[in-house]
Amino acid sequence: MSELLYAEDLVIGSEWDLGSCLVTEPEIIEFARQWDPQGFHVDPDIAAAGFFGGIIASGIHTMAIFQRLAVPAVFDRWATIAGRGMRDVRLLRPVRPGTTLTGTMIVDIVDLHRPDRARVEMTGRLVEDGGTVLEMTMEISARRR
Amino acid sequence: MSELLYAEDLVIGSEWDLGSCLVTEPEIIEFARQWDPQGFHVDPDIAAAGFFGGIIASGIHTMAIFQRLAVPAVFDRWATIAGRGMRDVRLLRPVRPGTTLTGTMIVDIVDLHRPDRARVEMTGRLVEDGGTVLEMTMEISARRR
Repeated sequence: MSELLYAEDLVIGSEWDLGSCLVTEPEIIEFARQWDPQGFHVDPDIAAAGFFGGIIASGIHTMAIFQRLAVPAVFDRWATIAGRGMRDVRLLRPVRPGTTLTGTMIVDIVDLHRPDRARVEMTGRLVEDGGTVLEMTMEISARRR
Repeated sequence: MSELLYAEDLVIGSEWDLGSCLVTEPEIIEFARQWDPQGFHVDPDIAAAGFFGGIIASGIHTMAIFQRLAVPAVFDRWATIAGRGMRDVRLLRPVRPGTTLTGTMIVDIVDLHRPDRARVEMTGRLVEDGGTVLEMTMEISARRR
């Protein structure tokens, strides 16, 4: 495992590759049954008759997929304290079963606002072949050296 | 079940009670193992030695709890098409095991921007005894009558 990166080590504008994952219909339905049981997320018949013509993933599920990719690729490699929030979370396209999503993160701001920690802002994205499905600005606290 | 509410039926400034739920340590760890496996969410020993002195819930988990409360209380009662995104998601306090969270949603904007549908903005909050743990502005598409 490579050395832990502290706030001072993060390069503004650097882009982090988060890898990819396939989103399956069973996963979409299982997540939504527990956390977001709206008909168009959990019931193929209701979804088929509805606005999107088929099951789509919950937006919270899409964000969870981003986080699952980001933890090993980024947050476990940085001296992360915790998330502070997000801004401008855009669910730009429906995520349908069988979609492969690829994640990236760009470091936008490193604000060394305290002697012991910094506020770090990043732009996170999930894309499929056709374009971006999720874009958001994330803010975390990270340790300084 | 009460009659479905369309965009024109939503009252600006109306507050919706989402009810409450208890957040347990097994649920925090199970959610985070799957979606956000950072040490301070999944490992009591790592968490005890860390910044918060114990396990805290993933921010995505906290948002998922909000959504689980909001679906039966609000989204299933409105002619919801889908979520469009969120703005200004603030994770204001760590959510620790044993916390009871209570949700509310306030309708801020109903924008009848298309003949068939509207853009609706709401402020969502989860509070515990000590104060607000999650605050966010949410945006959905909803059907018009």
